[in-house]
Amino acid sequence: MNTDFHARSFSLLSEQLGAKGIKAAELVSRISAFQIAVPSWALGAGGTRFGRFSIGGEPRNLEEKLEDIGLLSKLTKRTDAVSLHIPWDIPQDSQAVKQKAASLGISFDAMNSNTFQDYGQPLSYKMGSLSNSDSAVRAQAVEHNLQVIDIGKSLGSKGLTVWLADGSNFPGQAHFRKALQWTTESLKEIYAEMPHDWKLLLEYKPYEPNFYHTVIPDWGTSALICRQLGDRAKVLVDLGHHLPNTNIEQIVATLMHQNLLAGFHFNDSKYGDDDLSTGSVKPYQLFLIFCELIGGAAEGAQAWDSISWMIDASHNTKDPLEDLIQALEAISQAYAKALLVDREKLTQCQNEGDVVGAQEVLQEAFLTDVRPLVREARIQSGGEAAPLDFYRREKIRESLIAKRGKNAQASGL
Amino acid sequence: MNTDFHARSFSLLSEQLGAKGIKAAELVSRISAFQIAVPSWALGAGGTRFGRFSIGGEPRNLEEKLEDIGLLSKLTKRTDAVSLHIPWDIPQDSQAVKQKAASLGISFDAMNSNTFQDYGQPLSYKMGSLSNSDSAVRAQAVEHNLQVIDIGKSLGSKGLTVWLADGSNFPGQAHFRKALQWTTESLKEIYAEMPHDWKLLLEYKPYEPNFYHTVIPDWGTSALICRQLGDRAKVLVDLGHHLPNTNIEQIVATLMHQNLLAGFHFNDSKYGDDDLSTGSVKPYQLFLIFCELIGGAAEGAQAWDSISWMIDASHNTKDPLEDLIQALEAISQAYAKALLVDREKLTQCQNEGDVVGAQEVLQEAFLTDVRPLVREARIQSGGEAAPLDFYRREKIRESLIAKRGKNAQASGL
Amino acid sequence: MNTDFHARSFSLLSEQLGAKGIKAAELVSRISAFQIAVPSWALGAGGTRFGRFSIGGEPRNLEEKLEDIGLLSKLTKRTDAVSLHIPWDIPQDSQAVKQKAASLGISFDAMNSNTFQDYGQPLSYKMGSLSNSDSAVRAQAVEHNLQVIDIGKSLGSKGLTVWLADGSNFPGQAHFRKALQWTTESLKEIYAEMPHDWKLLLEYKPYEPNFYHTVIPDWGTSALICRQLGDRAKVLVDLGHHLPNTNIEQIVATLMHQNLLAGFHFNDSKYGDDDLSTGSVKPYQLFLIFCELIGGAAEGAQAWDSISWMIDASHNTKDPLEDLIQALEAISQAYAKALLVDREKLTQCQNEGDVVGAQEVLQEAFLTDVRPLVREARIQSGGEAAPLDFYRREKIRESLIAKRGKNAQASGL
Amino acid sequence: MNTDFHARSFSLLSEQLGAKGIKAAELVSRISAFQIAVPSWALGAGGTRFGRFSIGGEPRNLEEKLEDIGLLSKLTKRTDAVSLHIPWDIPQDSQAVKQKAASLGISFDAMNSNTFQDYGQPLSYKMGSLSNSDSAVRAQAVEHNLQVIDIGKSLGSKGLTVWLADGSNFPGQAHFRKALQWTTESLKEIYAEMPHDWKLLLEYKPYEPNFYHTVIPDWGTSALICRQLGDRAKVLVDLGHHLPNTNIEQIVATLMHQNLLAGFHFNDSKYGDDDLSTGSVKPYQLFLIFCELIGGAAEGAQAWDSISWMIDASHNTKDPLEDLIQALEAISQAYAKALLVDREKLTQCQNEGDVVGAQEVLQEAFLTDVRPLVREARIQSGGEAAPLDFYRREKIRESLIAKRGKNAQASGL
Repeated sequence: MNTDFHARSFSLLSEQLGAKGIKAAELVSRISAFQIAVPSWALGAGGTRFGRFSIGGEPRNLEEKLEDIGLLSKLTKRTDAVSLHIPWDIPQDSQAVKQKAASLGISFDAMNSNTFQDYGQPLSYKMGSLSNSDSAVRAQAVEHNLQVIDIGKSLGSKGLTVWLADGSNFPGQAHFRKALQWTTESLKEIYAEMPHDWKLLLEYKPYEPNFYHTVIPDWGTSALICRQLGDRAKVLVDLGHHLPNTNIEQIVATLMHQNLLAGFHFNDSKYGDDDLSTGSVKPYQLFLIFCELIGGAAEGAQAWDSISWMIDASHNTKDPLEDLIQALEAISQAYAKALLVDREKLTQCQNEGDVVGAQEVLQEAFLTDVRPLVREARIQSGGEAAPLDFYRREKIRESLIAKRGKNAQASGL
Repeated sequence: MNTDFHARSFSLLSEQLGAKGIKAAELVSRISAFQIAVPSWALGAGGTRFGRFSIGGEPRNLEEKLEDIGLLSKLTKRTDAVSLHIPWDIPQDSQAVKQKAASLGISFDAMNSNTFQDYGQPLSYKMGSLSNSDSAVRAQAVEHNLQVIDIGKSLGSKGLTVWLADGSNFPGQAHFRKALQWTTESLKEIYAEMPHDWKLLLEYKPYEPNFYHTVIPDWGTSALICRQLGDRAKVLVDLGHHLPNTNIEQIVATLMHQNLLAGFHFNDSKYGDDDLSTGSVKPYQLFLIFCELIGGAAEGAQAWDSISWMIDASHNTKDPLEDLIQALEAISQAYAKALLVDREKLTQCQNEGDVVGAQEVLQEAFLTDVRPLVREARIQSGGEAAPLDFYRREKIRESLIAKRGKNAQASGL
Repeated sequence: MNTDFHARSFSLLSEQLGAKGIKAAELVSRISAFQIAVPSWALGAGGTRFGRFSIGGEPRNLEEKLEDIGLLSKLTKRTDAVSLHIPWDIPQDSQAVKQKAASLGISFDAMNSNTFQDYGQPLSYKMGSLSNSDSAVRAQAVEHNLQVIDIGKSLGSKGLTVWLADGSNFPGQAHFRKALQWTTESLKEIYAEMPHDWKLLLEYKPYEPNFYHTVIPDWGTSALICRQLGDRAKVLVDLGHHLPNTNIEQIVATLMHQNLLAGFHFNDSKYGDDDLSTGSVKPYQLFLIFCELIGGAAEGAQAWDSISWMIDASHNTKDPLEDLIQALEAISQAYAKALLVDREKLTQCQNEGDVVGAQEVLQEAFLTDVRPLVREARIQSGGEAAPLDFYRREKIRESLIAKRGKNAQASGL
Repeated sequence: MNTDFHARSFSLLSEQLGAKGIKAAELVSRISAFQIAVPSWALGAGGTRFGRFSIGGEPRNLEEKLEDIGLLSKLTKRTDAVSLHIPWDIPQDSQAVKQKAASLGISFDAMNSNTFQDYGQPLSYKMGSLSNSDSAVRAQAVEHNLQVIDIGKSLGSKGLTVWLADGSNFPGQAHFRKALQWTTESLKEIYAEMPHDWKLLLEYKPYEPNFYHTVIPDWGTSALICRQLGDRAKVLVDLGHHLPNTNIEQIVATLMHQNLLAGFHFNDSKYGDDDLSTGSVKPYQLFLIFCELIGGAAEGAQAWDSISWMIDASHNTKDPLEDLIQALEAISQAYAKALLVDREKLTQCQNEGDVVGAQEVLQEAFLTDVRPLVREARIQSGGEAAPLDFYRREKIRESLIAKRGKNAQASGL
């Protein structure tokens, strides 16, 4: 990073934006304020059903996971929270963990329950958990979620994310309506026990790990359930959880229209739930999503602060920390570009049926090189101007391997 | 059709079913009772944006359309209603039309409005109709729907089908939330004027003729609007209106779970809204949909009689009447097969997690050759044993061409 | 299975077919002759990246895998060969294994190499194998394939199946043309060492485990490489390895047109490479594929005997042996139905542009209940009339668990 | 456009690029040299099967089409050729047309034949043209193509683009292998009569207007045919002609690897062959395609000059001229960004398995705001700095309407 070029680029961009009535300082301030949580399972190498390739130096326990996120926070200044997964991250000593996190400037984002795997619990989730036809299995799955809430309470978390993998692989295997009904009832039990200042973030996903039907396949089903739970239950959007060609930005708008958007799991994909780095495949889509978010908040559909932000990708061939640095940068850029949209002019084009003009307004924002803004925000916040360069220059992965070992493997998938 | 083979096949099948406690006579009676409406625009050749190939002898007016459906009814005994489209089918004399239809045993199914084309009305629908940012255009579109209701009242129809093509081709062109809000408000005005014994059937479709966003793209959005309208507004499922790989049978179940299924537009497709003959590409999917319908009705989720049935295909390379005969046969077969499902055994498999057994139950029904049942139903109702053979043997298309001309073209797309 | 009903159904069907000039005995004979290989990895429970649920009693070694296939063969008479995977199935004593297989009536179908996982070899396949930019890795991968050939030779196999997972997760990661070139060169080295009576079966797959690009993504690329290798290299079609909406039966025809079809990996899917039981989701597609196979062979495009047949599914929620019984049955049915197609009449319809008639010809075959034919073939061959019933009645899985243990896990994914 | 800002932006960008060893002047020169043809049918409003909305002032004949392209050329300096469609653009007087074009600086790109519609020719193309089972229809379609070549010769064109819509709507309708064989033979006849300095550009498309099978559905089939024709037959890539999720940039690389890339039809899409403005939905994909093109040419796979460039979009809701201005700008930007890729560094990352680094190299190029380069190229060539602003300011559409009428409709779809 050439410091001089940064200064001059930022200066020229500020001047250009200023000529349009946009204050660069304000943009920098908003970019600085935008923080994205990192899930604890994202710090190790991911894998596919065909195998997994180790990265080396992965965090061996919750404390080391916090340290990795602390590092990310120090370098990028774009993340200040971790999202834990139970049972992968059960803290031995909640107070100690909480203090350690605080010392690193990290708080606890939404907790994640796991009823899609068997990890020693009495009854198997092979045929489903919250939707299981056996009430004992459902009760066990509800109980697990309540335990997750308890752990979260001890850490200061304020949310429970439920990704329900339940579904079926073959026609006939499941009873669609009963499964939906049982799921709703199970979630009602969980919701009833959730603290009043918590929210429930309910994911949807059309397929995988079940390949014929999933109990909560789309936003409509998730919203249907949330409406029956109460105001604090909202729909979580994972960018990879959609059928081919879905217009995700429209779903975001529709959810905000109903004040039903819980938040995001950021990633990118070309085929399915590929869990690639956000912004690496469809950066324009990410920009359009942020346009809806900013517009929806500005126009009062749903408050910005009511939305949760989290990365959820699988780092199969990249160093997870490098991947997260890239993801945080991509999200910041998409956000910054969306902030540049001349919304007044856009509205005018929309009202006048000026399709060409509306496209120009979006392109004007998207084509702008906002890296000077994002970099300035990072520098002003005390982060690194070029975090990835720093990470490599300082040989951080090498240090982690030296400390934790070549074969250290983080808990998770 | 060999009469002897039919008698013996039906006899052996009846015996086999009887051994399982299924009464063939009852099945025949249910198949006979199941009637599917035909849309008035399905009697002429369809086309694509690349052109249209004439079929010859197409009905030149509403009366001739009724005659074609009357013929279909006489041959197949599987259809007893027509679904009209305004402005393509404005009757000059409603009473005369009604009498003609009655004489052919045809009643008037749901009416269809058209706000996706410009056909001389004062304001253009180029930028949308019920969702248009211009309130004058919205008012005009609402007024058109009210006129359609009026025409329908004069004919004895009891429903209004709204397919809203509104949407946008490019990011930025439309304001998602406003478009949704305006659409809801427009529909509220229409709903308010709808007779109390009518229902509103609201379609959804992800794309085409708009290729970036459609205002009502999925069942969730349609249901969201219907809930704001009232009990008599329900979601219409057109089989071709889904993204790739959608589990349509699950959507059917989810809608019935909410008592929100208005009915069907039957067709088949491999890629998008291909509008091919029902059952010609994915017959197993059609069977699975009927399994959900029968199960949902049997278990009290939604009453069978509250659901509307209509064919909606585009006959680009087939004689429309032959295509409709094939479609009615395919629907009857799927229905008959679904009636054969041993629901008690299926429930048992589902409760025991017997995935293999559940598949066997469905396969047992699907693999059964139900043509003897469907044929017997047709014969008992006074139809033709082999309608397609009859149609060809009697050279009906040739007669229609002789009467109506080689270049007669039905109104429609 | 009611013996009387079978006899009478078979008799009536035979008579009906006879009236059309089709000899049932000949059909039974062809169905009996059609044998499908089973892969060694299909005998244990499969899994997804989110976990795996054990089935119990899985074969613990190659010998037990052979025993399972021997059992399948005895019950169904539809399989007589196993396809081994190296390194999962390295025989300790090839002669002993060969004898054991022979005693069970099992021969050795194509061998499968594995360069998509790290299992202790010196160089990692993380960044690819046959396409790796590092020539040492490519050499290692070539060498592995040569070892697989050697093992295959010792067992009497006559083919090598190469599924190359190589590809990339992100734009920029791989050099498309170089990767293709290196792959071609690596395969040339393997092909050169392959015995003259062997064939090389080259798979294609659009994505997974790589989610941006796969080196051999489609039939066109596989064919391009095969053409450069020689006559004994042909394209393997795995039914799950296609983008949404692909017309697979057309690909089969196009490959046969070039005499380039190596064979099949049978499975079914709704979304991606779901690896569900063949025929469980899209039975009509399977029928259409067999129509092309039978037509292509009958008309001299490619010899039937030159095509290899194998099941390749992942049994995540079903007992693998039960699943295989269902798959073998579904394949036999699709084959039997395709044999019923009146090809002369179909040709006539095609030549006359009789689209409706052509559909009728296919439907006439598909709607026929061919279970009496398939059952008769099985009985005449000495198998069980109802293999699944037998398997359950005899409590075979329970016996296997008793013998091998609840937690026995087969090698594989 | 603020002239001062342009100058300073261009200056700073030049300096920044210079620091990396990239000469801005050279980039400007390459951008200036890159010209994209415009099809004659793109100058009027497009439509869907559901209707068409007029734009007003559309060119009423070939001369007016040339004038529109002349205007585009004058404003943007990015197009210097027209691609004609027969029978829509049959010139009355070839010499006069040629002179008129020359006076506007326009030459004649590849000619397009049309055997997908009936426009009065003796035999119908309803059941196909070059693939028709009737040899007389095939002969007629071949003859039409030869006439198109003749017209093209009289105008100085050097290519024939064949988009073959032939296919089928239902299983059984077509004989896949015969249709492929007949198509190949028909194309051989056309190729044999093509002048030696012409090339044949063969398109592929998976579906529409046929919805079950298309004779040339994918690049593999197109390449298969081209190989049988000869060196001057190559594969044309239309960006909208792919199944969901296709990696188009890889296809481009694979075709260049074989020296088989004929050229492009630029457009963009979200669902199918949506024919939206290039770069309006997936700008990153367009950039990646240009990366392959530049890399393939630079590394000698296929010569840049051997590739044809054409826009092919349908302007349903935009003024066609404005749309084309946006498209030319988007293509120029994608090209300019791809020119910025540090190919040496990219190669290094690829060789070292540095996935993160490779992504950074591409992002560095894509995130750069290249509008100063594209604008500078336009200015230096004598075009308008801001063509769209100019077009609107000068009220060009209004003038065209005044001259040609509100209801003038261009020939085409």
